[in-house]
Amino acid sequence: MTAPVVVVGGDAAGMSAASKFKRDAPDREVVVFERGEWVSYGACGLPYYVKGAVETLEDLVSVTPEEFVEQRDIDLRTNHEVTAIDREAQTVSVDGPDGEFEQAYSELLIATGARAVEPPLDGMELDGVFTLHSMQAGADIRRAIGLETPAVDAREVASDYADTEDPESVGIIGGGYVGIEMAEAFAERGLDVHLFEMLPHTLQPFGANAAATVERHLREQGVDLHLDTAVDAITGDGRVSAIAAGDADVPVDLALVGVGVAPNTKLAEAAGIDTGETGAIATDGYGRTNDDHVYAAGDCAEATHVVTDEPDHVPLALTANRAGRAIGQTLAGDETPVGEIAGTAAVKAFDLEVARTGVIEESVAREAGFDPVSVTITAPSRAHYYPGGSEIEITMLGDRESGRVLGASMVGREGVAKRIDTVAAALHAEMTAQRLSSLDLAYAPPFSPVWDPVLTAAKVLAGKLE
Amino acid sequence: MTAPVVVVGGDAAGMSAASKFKRDAPDREVVVFERGEWVSYGACGLPYYVKGAVETLEDLVSVTPEEFVEQRDIDLRTNHEVTAIDREAQTVSVDGPDGEFEQAYSELLIATGARAVEPPLDGMELDGVFTLHSMQAGADIRRAIGLETPAVDAREVASDYADTEDPESVGIIGGGYVGIEMAEAFAERGLDVHLFEMLPHTLQPFGANAAATVERHLREQGVDLHLDTAVDAITGDGRVSAIAAGDADVPVDLALVGVGVAPNTKLAEAAGIDTGETGAIATDGYGRTNDDHVYAAGDCAEATHVVTDEPDHVPLALTANRAGRAIGQTLAGDETPVGEIAGTAAVKAFDLEVARTGVIEESVAREAGFDPVSVTITAPSRAHYYPGGSEIEITMLGDRESGRVLGASMVGREGVAKRIDTVAAALHAEMTAQRLSSLDLAYAPPFSPVWDPVLTAAKVLAGKLE
Repeated sequence: MTAPVVVVGGDAAGMSAASKFKRDAPDREVVVFERGEWVSYGACGLPYYVKGAVETLEDLVSVTPEEFVEQRDIDLRTNHEVTAIDREAQTVSVDGPDGEFEQAYSELLIATGARAVEPPLDGMELDGVFTLHSMQAGADIRRAIGLETPAVDAREVASDYADTEDPESVGIIGGGYVGIEMAEAFAERGLDVHLFEMLPHTLQPFGANAAATVERHLREQGVDLHLDTAVDAITGDGRVSAIAAGDADVPVDLALVGVGVAPNTKLAEAAGIDTGETGAIATDGYGRTNDDHVYAAGDCAEATHVVTDEPDHVPLALTANRAGRAIGQTLAGDETPVGEIAGTAAVKAFDLEVARTGVIEESVAREAGFDPVSVTITAPSRAHYYPGGSEIEITMLGDRESGRVLGASMVGREGVAKRIDTVAAALHAEMTAQRLSSLDLAYAPPFSPVWDPVLTAAKVLAGKLE
Repeated sequence: MTAPVVVVGGDAAGMSAASKFKRDAPDREVVVFERGEWVSYGACGLPYYVKGAVETLEDLVSVTPEEFVEQRDIDLRTNHEVTAIDREAQTVSVDGPDGEFEQAYSELLIATGARAVEPPLDGMELDGVFTLHSMQAGADIRRAIGLETPAVDAREVASDYADTEDPESVGIIGGGYVGIEMAEAFAERGLDVHLFEMLPHTLQPFGANAAATVERHLREQGVDLHLDTAVDAITGDGRVSAIAAGDADVPVDLALVGVGVAPNTKLAEAAGIDTGETGAIATDGYGRTNDDHVYAAGDCAEATHVVTDEPDHVPLALTANRAGRAIGQTLAGDETPVGEIAGTAAVKAFDLEVARTGVIEESVAREAGFDPVSVTITAPSRAHYYPGGSEIEITMLGDRESGRVLGASMVGREGVAKRIDTVAAALHAEMTAQRLSSLDLAYAPPFSPVWDPVLTAAKVLAGKLE
């Protein structure tokens, strides 16, 4: 009898792979080891859970452990940590509630995800300092701002966090997705928000133009922005009382640290699995590592960028789901590429939608061998006469030599998050700016001007590329 | 001295061509003859003007005649009708306020647009019966439902329509774009709306699935739908009082007839310019007719469909603008294709967005040589846990032999009108369903589930095409 397929990690990539594998090869066995309690949960939803727009942590779960076991016939073991991989013997060492054991595998998928980076700051250990690294952390923060955390099912949300009197202010360290989304969550709960970003701009992957527009909006919403400001320490006596940054000492009642994520590669590296230049696990177009029997997918793995054709590490939910599903299909016997990534992403920042795809930094484009040219336009979201429209700002990057579109960022009050997809599709098809500008896109007065803003940006870019 | 470029018709295609030509060849002359008073107006905005969401007709105009003359240096003559083309002499006969004259041309663009079809019904001449064929008609209808029509500039909106006491009901004949948009406009003004459609479904270009969803919604909104119902006559004594259809005699105070548009080809045909199978003027990829010196663009002309590669007639605003602009560029010396069409379109129907692109009728696909396979899916517009989401229904058509996506329709409360553009881009790039399903599209909980509904539809279609 062949050994089962084994999956390490029960979130997006792991559960997508296990589900697809069992659907396509129902007679074969798959075992998933998840070191935590939660599987297949939407970590992207935590900011909305913290502010109370989502009632329970359970609501974030798309498929429960029971459903995976009973409906999908997956041998899912939560609270089981894989501690080592023996590639020669094709076994993994597992530490579970009933002790340690070995599990043989025929094929192994490493889907260990990423973790919140903990910066080496004094004061990280103080009460009232959080990272949003887990479901538990989400519950802790929610309780810290005075909201209830309804217990659900067996997964009671216990916490060692001691509730305190109503906090009035919060310092957020890091202006990425998490920082921006949490700024909105805290502000909506009535807290004064201080956001610290060491770079000149927030939302680094979205480029300086979109970020500057977001920052104006954040300030209008009352967020105290401290850009270009490295935090020196979180201070307090047992409990956070201030953020020290340069000359300033900003008093806060809570602190949230969100300075990015790093791939969990320790298990893989200890077993001699190669990582790439990005630090994530190197894979081929089918998710295979340097060991033919070991795959990697999701936030711990690299993927190929559709514009640069180089390995990249963009830990996002769709990439993880898609790669997991493809590997499940491959393992079931139907070789399926994991798909290329364009780094397409969107984020809500109070009343703004921000989106990006492809390469939008000229330096990155140059490094990849392109001769980048960039344009920025603004165009209305609706027909000029239709009430309620607003402006969409688009920055689009092209390559002078080939005429190709390399990427774009967008920001506006409506019609942004999904408009970026048109550009993403153009990137996958390697369209020139000229070609993108001549697509037949939808027009109706309530939804778009006759020339969609994407067409206008591409038209202006094509003119500049001539 | 060369004769000027002459354009017949001062709306989207004509004014786009004239503007681009003068921008690229400022030393050359262009004369535009427009038989009416209005140029470059957004006819698509008339339903919103009628219901009062747009205040004046002038608001629908994107560039005024004065601006065309003074800022763009275009010799624009409103109230000038071109009555004949002499292709041998390269002149047109013009009937203007100061009499008739001949105008020589070096190159001619026919941009005569389309007209509302007037069905051969008894009662079309009654008071209170309208078609939405012109700016004037928009003002007349608005006045008929008791709203003011503010006069603007010199273009006073005179009317021979005699105001009557408050109408309480309206019969709309035809369930296309105009019928649906006007149903919303009338209903919002408090009128009882009867909508008559002779086919089994409204919104024919959007396919039966999307139409059925729209129809349920129209009924929920109180619209009285009479599907599969041919109107026999509009009846009344001097003034409309009822719509006669089969056994029914539905009393109404007003009637609006919107049964489609037909290309204005009389002028071209009289001069021996060929029309195609669709009845519109036949053109090549650069907008040229069978006469090398005569171009045609906009609602009077055919264009090449990106999926079937055949000439088609889809009178929409972007097609007209784009072709006009390309021809202007070509006439200025830079040969530019007018671009292919996908028939991409969107419409608002009360609280629903409806959109379509490509080929969605299996019979049309078969006729074009495809072996069509279709799927219909529903998927959420936002992450399942994010408040306020709704369902999007997508029907997607693919070709069994090539695996290509042929087209799609979509309907839902949000995120539909511009989501169709992703599919439109895929059609232009001749993507297979498999490839479309592996695009890296944007995900964020407020805007999309992890697998965008377009990806889900493509995934299901790809599975069925295998």
